Amino acid sequence: MSDNAIDVDSGTVYLVGSGPGDPDLLTVKAMRLLEAADVVLHDKLPGPEIIDMLPEDRREDVGKRAGGERTPQSEINERLVELAREGNAVVRLKGGDSFVFGRGGEEAEYLAAHDVPFEVVPAVTSAIAAPAVAGIPVTHRDHASSVSFVTGHEDPTKEESAVDWDALAATGGTIVVLMGVGRLPDYTDALLEAGMAPETPVALVERGTWPGQQVATGTLETIVDARDEAGISPPAITVIGDVAGTRESIVDFLRNDYGTAEDEA
Amino acid sequence: MSDNAIDVDSGTVYLVGSGPGDPDLLTVKAMRLLEAADVVLHDKLPGPEIIDMLPEDRREDVGKRAGGERTPQSEINERLVELAREGNAVVRLKGGDSFVFGRGGEEAEYLAAHDVPFEVVPAVTSAIAAPAVAGIPVTHRDHASSVSFVTGHEDPTKEESAVDWDALAATGGTIVVLMGVGRLPDYTDALLEAGMAPETPVALVERGTWPGQQVATGTLETIVDARDEAGISPPAITVIGDVAGTRESIVDFLRNDYGTAEDEA
Repeated sequence: MSDNAIDVDSGTVYLVGSGPGDPDLLTVKAMRLLEAADVVLHDKLPGPEIIDMLPEDRREDVGKRAGGERTPQSEINERLVELAREGNAVVRLKGGDSFVFGRGGEEAEYLAAHDVPFEVVPAVTSAIAAPAVAGIPVTHRDHASSVSFVTGHEDPTKEESAVDWDALAATGGTIVVLMGVGRLPDYTDALLEAGMAPETPVALVERGTWPGQQVATGTLETIVDARDEAGISPPAITVIGDVAGTRESIVDFLRNDYGTAEDEA
Repeated sequence: MSDNAIDVDSGTVYLVGSGPGDPDLLTVKAMRLLEAADVVLHDKLPGPEIIDMLPEDRREDVGKRAGGERTPQSEINERLVELAREGNAVVRLKGGDSFVFGRGGEEAEYLAAHDVPFEVVPAVTSAIAAPAVAGIPVTHRDHASSVSFVTGHEDPTKEESAVDWDALAATGGTIVVLMGVGRLPDYTDALLEAGMAPETPVALVERGTWPGQQVATGTLETIVDARDEAGISPPAITVIGDVAGTRESIVDFLRNDYGTAEDEA
């Protein structure tokens, strides 16, 4: 049932999420579209295993320009329209889910404004999957009635933080920060100032579901040191809240084989 | 590359999410595990298309007991341990993602406490996918720096709401409510009282990615009427925030074929 071909429409753009990085966590639909597409536009975020699967003659890396700087979103938008108008079935492949801090919304708006039909193909988001494979459920009946996702990467043109850490702390739910390794000291401080308990469990999951996944655990007070000791570097997901403590009680029986207990700080 | 078999371990439980309901949105790994498992424990939440795919002689419906009432979680936990100890490779299949309001955390804790090894297989969550296929990105650089997921199903044993709607409103981000059709009037009122603008866009997506998906749109003030006019019933996802307005500007070029524009209220 998993080996059917898929019909792709020429002149259409497929906004496809690649999931957290393990190729087996691609959806069946994403896998079929990657096989059937005329061209796949991607950057580095889907991770090495998935990028290596893409046929070289049908893929186009739009992550960096020749000079090494990041390709402006406007250029990617224009390329999508150009390729679709040439009659291609185009896959725009994003890391994680295109509609979770992935600019999929902007691409959809641009395509619609230029009369290009498109399809949205949802994916497994790293924000949930990276904690999950490390033994951390982002919600739990006993610990968290809500979960909030924010990005640690602020838009550099904004004068002050668009994220209201006081309000996030007040929800009482789990807080998951994407791309938040570098600014970890800033937002752990902000959450402590907002009144969160210093002993609140925090976990960092680097390269979740990739080979060499690494996990560091601590509390709001200790996690910066734990990060430095473990040498956690981007890309990583930060999980803040009582659910982060679940890992400890279940990790001995957790058989996900992305990382090992030895990787732990 | 999608038709490889998978090795399953006897005596191991696989906590697998089924995604939002479209079988093509199962992950490659989930699909292979469903093919290889000795037994699949499921309820109705994965949806009819996925349940119909499961071989009848290897599936066990743990959603309802003979009398019609819901099977207690404790009974499901015990059954998982029993089947694993008999040497089966057991898939516990949940709708959406097991670790997002899916009790996967409780099952993992029970298994670990009973020395049963398990693996967690993340999935596409309906909370992101149902809005996405309806043309609504849960985050957007111009509209929402965060997104919070809550459930509209309160634990009936709790005396007052565990969800802090004031704090959620104060985040300024998108709010996604799972299982929130029935209590829609309660929490839209709570958000208005918390100071959210009455004209804040709201969308309801019923049976997202299932055949017959239906969408209703409105504002915090009008969505209850829109729900009633469209006849939206569970299961449905509620999206509250400026991102819900994105649908209108892109829907004419959105080719996801789960529902049609005619379904719209």
